[in-house]
Amino acid sequence: MIKNGKIHVIGLGPGDRQHMSERARTAILDSEVVIGYKTYIALVEDLLEGKEVIDSGMRKEVERCNLTVDKALDGKRVCIISSGDAGVYGMAGIMLEVKNERNADVEIEIIPGITAANAAAASLGAPMMHDFAVISLSDLLTDWELIKKRIECAAMGDFIISLYNPKSMGRVHQIEEARDILLKYKKPSTPVGIVKNAKRKGEEVVITDLAHMLNYPIDMLTVVMIGNGKTYVKNGKMITPRGYQL
Amino acid sequence: MIKNGKIHVIGLGPGDRQHMSERARTAILDSEVVIGYKTYIALVEDLLEGKEVIDSGMRKEVERCNLTVDKALDGKRVCIISSGDAGVYGMAGIMLEVKNERNADVEIEIIPGITAANAAAASLGAPMMHDFAVISLSDLLTDWELIKKRIECAAMGDFIISLYNPKSMGRVHQIEEARDILLKYKKPSTPVGIVKNAKRKGEEVVITDLAHMLNYPIDMLTVVMIGNGKTYVKNGKMITPRGYQL
Ligand SMILES: C[S@@+](CC[C@H](N)C(=O)[O-])C[C@H]1O[C@@H](n2cnc3c(N)ncnc32)[C@H](O)[C@@H]1O
Ligand SMILES: C[S@@+](CC[C@H](N)C(=O)[O-])C[C@H]1O[C@@H](n2cnc3c(N)ncnc32)[C@H](O)[C@@H]1O
Repeated sequence: MIKNGKIHVIGLGPGDRQHMSERARTAILDSEVVIGYKTYIALVEDLLEGKEVIDSGMRKEVERCNLTVDKALDGKRVCIISSGDAGVYGMAGIMLEVKNERNADVEIEIIPGITAANAAAASLGAPMMHDFAVISLSDLLTDWELIKKRIECAAMGDFIISLYNPKSMGRVHQIEEARDILLKYKKPSTPVGIVKNAKRKGEEVVITDLAHMLNYPIDMLTVVMIGNGKTYVKNGKMITPRGYQL
Repeated sequence: MIKNGKIHVIGLGPGDRQHMSERARTAILDSEVVIGYKTYIALVEDLLEGKEVIDSGMRKEVERCNLTVDKALDGKRVCIISSGDAGVYGMAGIMLEVKNERNADVEIEIIPGITAANAAAASLGAPMMHDFAVISLSDLLTDWELIKKRIECAAMGDFIISLYNPKSMGRVHQIEEARDILLKYKKPSTPVGIVKNAKRKGEEVVITDLAHMLNYPIDMLTVVMIGNGKTYVKNGKMITPRGYQL
């Protein structure tokens, strides 16, 4: 009888090896097969000696998960990697769905990682100290009307808002529309943090406000963090007070 | 001239050492003084040999930060620790505020960690695969009316919702009111995950729904995760599809 393998779905954290968890590192080392998008494979290159490595292009998520199941059914210890946390716009969900769809008798363990919002927040100061919302502006898989509604609801609730996938080469108007909605509820002077490559090589941190945020470069490697009504900037740091009496 | 010390504000992750980042570990090892709430100090006991350790009780946050600044002004390398991510209802904000208030010439670095929501999500399956909101039900520092409004807005926007500080010995009605608000927008059959001690000793995972969630124990060591309109439960896992075509 072939013993079916185990699948680890791993969040690598923001990018720098130092911000990866020990559990993620040992799970990669313990794997016989490592599957992932090229860019993420490159981040852990030095852990891959002697392993079968399958890197694939973007937007091949379902294919990647099917391959992972195939390898596990072959009895292999396989891991599939995401940046940040695999459970936040990463591979965790689709991996479980593909497993269920195929009725595959393999065990799946999800290993959490530090997601981009927390990494960006640390570089900005302490903007996420109060209730926050995370919203992806990518309308590839989600109706733009629903995304707009969520931006509106989060703004109405005075949440701190962290925008993932804010802008790509072919997708530029969403961040502009998002800002227009935010301006219906939030003051133009509301602090905004723009962090590119948070906690990895090439990090760039900008602190600005809603009025001026579109003057700065924003792309797919960027998280945009919008403060709540109490967020302020002092000594170059973005701070949302929680309400302690000093 | 005394060289002023540096302060590291460290997120330990959910609790198990394996889910701590390498950066958090080395920053603790490099510190001469380690300051934190007793429970968190206990989590890193084995890293503390030869260090000055200052543990303090709950609700002494400002005092702890003042002590941290004092030590840093003495030229010491100090770290102050939070569970999860220090930037999410943790010590990062108040630390920066106390530093600014005292106009202290010390450097502060915030080191991110895996926050409770991501840890709990990993144990539940993949509930946070789409836009989500994190809300604390503690009305110690925040007006209950504002918290209720945020629950309402997050429900209206069909966010996945992660509730921190859901219930304590002396604070029991908030989770009931929260559920009543959620039921105005979400179906009683909406999946709910209740995770106590996520990714640390004593982990307990319950998957239920909005109708039945109050039948299960919920306390201050628990995160309550409410699905969006598409979240479902299959093979014991809570899954929010992102929208991929299988
Ligand atoms: C498909 S999502 C993946 C998110 C990832 N699973 C996580 O938890 O961080 C990709 C988006 O995450 C954000 N992102 C991921 N890593 C980042 C980093 N290190 N710095 C800034 N943004 C990042 C960007 O907004 C990017 O467009
Ligand atoms: C004051 S907040 C601190 C949050 C922490 N800084 C973080 O990022 O996870 C405390 C609340 O976080 C949640 N929490 C923290 N760690 C947890 C864990 N390992 N499992 C479940 N809930 C946890 C609980 O809701 C608890 O009441």
